[in-house]
Amino acid sequence: MVNFNFYNPARIIFGKDTEKELPVQIQKFGSKVLLHYGGGSIKKIGLYDKIVKILKDAGIPFVELGGVQPNPRLSLVYEGIQLCKKENVDFILAVGGGSTIDSAKAIAIGVPYDGDVWDFYDNKGEPKEILPVASVLTIPAAGSESSDGSVITNDTLNLKHSVGCELMIPKFTIMNPENTFSLPPYQTACGATDIMAHLMERYFTTVPNVDVSDRLIEATFRSMLYNVPKVLRNPNDYDARAEIMWAGTVAHNNLYQMGRIPDWGSHNIEHELSAIYDIAHGAGLAIVFPAWMKYVYKTDIKRFVQYAVRMFDVDLAFADDEEIALEGIRRLEAFSKSIGMPTRLADIGIGDDRIDEMAKKAVMYGPIGKFKPLYEEDVAAILRLAL
Amino acid sequence: MVNFNFYNPARIIFGKDTEKELPVQIQKFGSKVLLHYGGGSIKKIGLYDKIVKILKDAGIPFVELGGVQPNPRLSLVYEGIQLCKKENVDFILAVGGGSTIDSAKAIAIGVPYDGDVWDFYDNKGEPKEILPVASVLTIPAAGSESSDGSVITNDTLNLKHSVGCELMIPKFTIMNPENTFSLPPYQTACGATDIMAHLMERYFTTVPNVDVSDRLIEATFRSMLYNVPKVLRNPNDYDARAEIMWAGTVAHNNLYQMGRIPDWGSHNIEHELSAIYDIAHGAGLAIVFPAWMKYVYKTDIKRFVQYAVRMFDVDLAFADDEEIALEGIRRLEAFSKSIGMPTRLADIGIGDDRIDEMAKKAVMYGPIGKFKPLYEEDVAAILRLAL
Repeated sequence: MVNFNFYNPARIIFGKDTEKELPVQIQKFGSKVLLHYGGGSIKKIGLYDKIVKILKDAGIPFVELGGVQPNPRLSLVYEGIQLCKKENVDFILAVGGGSTIDSAKAIAIGVPYDGDVWDFYDNKGEPKEILPVASVLTIPAAGSESSDGSVITNDTLNLKHSVGCELMIPKFTIMNPENTFSLPPYQTACGATDIMAHLMERYFTTVPNVDVSDRLIEATFRSMLYNVPKVLRNPNDYDARAEIMWAGTVAHNNLYQMGRIPDWGSHNIEHELSAIYDIAHGAGLAIVFPAWMKYVYKTDIKRFVQYAVRMFDVDLAFADDEEIALEGIRRLEAFSKSIGMPTRLADIGIGDDRIDEMAKKAVMYGPIGKFKPLYEEDVAAILRLAL
Repeated sequence: MVNFNFYNPARIIFGKDTEKELPVQIQKFGSKVLLHYGGGSIKKIGLYDKIVKILKDAGIPFVELGGVQPNPRLSLVYEGIQLCKKENVDFILAVGGGSTIDSAKAIAIGVPYDGDVWDFYDNKGEPKEILPVASVLTIPAAGSESSDGSVITNDTLNLKHSVGCELMIPKFTIMNPENTFSLPPYQTACGATDIMAHLMERYFTTVPNVDVSDRLIEATFRSMLYNVPKVLRNPNDYDARAEIMWAGTVAHNNLYQMGRIPDWGSHNIEHELSAIYDIAHGAGLAIVFPAWMKYVYKTDIKRFVQYAVRMFDVDLAFADDEEIALEGIRRLEAFSKSIGMPTRLADIGIGDDRIDEMAKKAVMYGPIGKFKPLYEEDVAAILRLAL
């Protein structure tokens, strides 16, 4: 186990009808709210009207900025920063999924900053100040509701970069599983894949003796294997939706990487895919992860054996490490297919024509991935394995 | 899953040589420190000298109050409150285990309170103010380093009562596994038993559909089954000591009871035992828990089957729920014995002469335990099963 510092002060208010907690929570941190959201889904399920009524009834003034897209755009962040400054907003409430929360975080670090907020995403320093951010989560996936990170796509430069620091952990998050009932199967599966990828990015570490966190990751991964098919069979299964929603938070609030060094190679490669092709992040991960695994498993085959045995109960071989490891990867692919995810670039119509460009961009700040550091040629090889 | 509100802002600074973080962390919260500790162990291992040097080198003024005993006494808490008031202390640093941290929390809520601090432990209201508390943990057991609770023994009335609220969560905790190397086997096992009891108190719930948290509890419990014998074989095994230390924190920072209703019956019964006989809390739990299990398992036999199968891999019976459940209880007893814990009152020389008195005191505020509410006659029956 390596030394660590764990701190996560995000408050999670979880369950039915928890939106009613908004006024008392907001008033702890701010007096004028930016209500930030995406497209029509929160209006379609009535959540928008519910929240607007709650804010109005409590006399909390707010302005609105909708239009957040998946792979949230820097251009909208700029718009949000201008709006907050003009309207003296001192609190940002994101209503939606990870894209909306990430966009809210970007606005929140941009408002008190004199320069261009992209500086932070371009590795030019860490934010020193932030407006308080909170969220009402509607898509379990990114874990942004209690994470310290934000990923933004620069729509001018076709770059998708991230920034993370303690300051950026949301103050609180309302999580009502009922708000996820209407998520379509594909989006549900994309979110689940992202959650499971967050677990795997942490699981594949070269740090030895990380038993407690190994087991916590395995526990959460196995719960996903059980509950994701359940919600795909019955989208209104409150308890299964609740398990996935809670799993999404604990998978990414940093608890599970304490004492470990996580990898993040697959996420970085996927960011290049979605920056260029604007695909769903979860779908990209379902494609990249198995390819990454096939490329790196020999780095520490015992870890891949543990993955196969503890996540998927692989017991068809015993003394043959390679067979067990490869069966674990096959079972992940089989699971992804069973929930409707693509597992190859070809499945979503992507060929090999821009692989070199993506590989080059992936390593623009140096090699990626800690389990096995990946250079340009490694990233290209992994993308080719994913074809 | 039931609705929940999770909030734990305790910072955990974990690993070798992390005591050096003390000055920068303390200075965030206070300017004059009460250094609170127990007996000679922190002096024997050199930790006392190390911390005193760190504080002096950083120019942080402090006063001292040692002498905390296991089952920490109200009389020392009173002394600490007087000392803090007289010396204008604004920050309390507990160096030790759960008793010392609980004592520190009691002093911290007592200083800004005009009445008798025992009021809070006597169910007469919740603390509204507190001095900031932090700790350097030396005994993994109570989980007090990131919990919201404190248990104090009123040495005049022979009562051992608890209080808990968000305010009482420590600001930070330094956890260096090396500081636990010198813990004797019996104390190591007592601490481990307390940690495992914290897991079981939460595991035995009547709330259905709590899959993620079930699995997190099981994961941590299994890691204890693996690591506790390891440290008993080799007390200086850094990694195994680290796993137990980290398990002790996550077992009791409330994460694992989110969406569930925990029991706490066994803890309440044990408090009566240690209030009267001044035994180690962990030893008391090793005796009370199996007796409680035998008394209540029919309330939800499937939960006890899950416990037996998932915690202890019981696969000797399949269709016979009762046999599986009882085997799970037998395996817990066998594990306790294997690490040197008593499993019967007779093992520590306690007879049946004060059972009725303990049963009466256990329910002085009403029935205890949520898995199966226990009345005076139930508590007496459980204590008789433990003879």
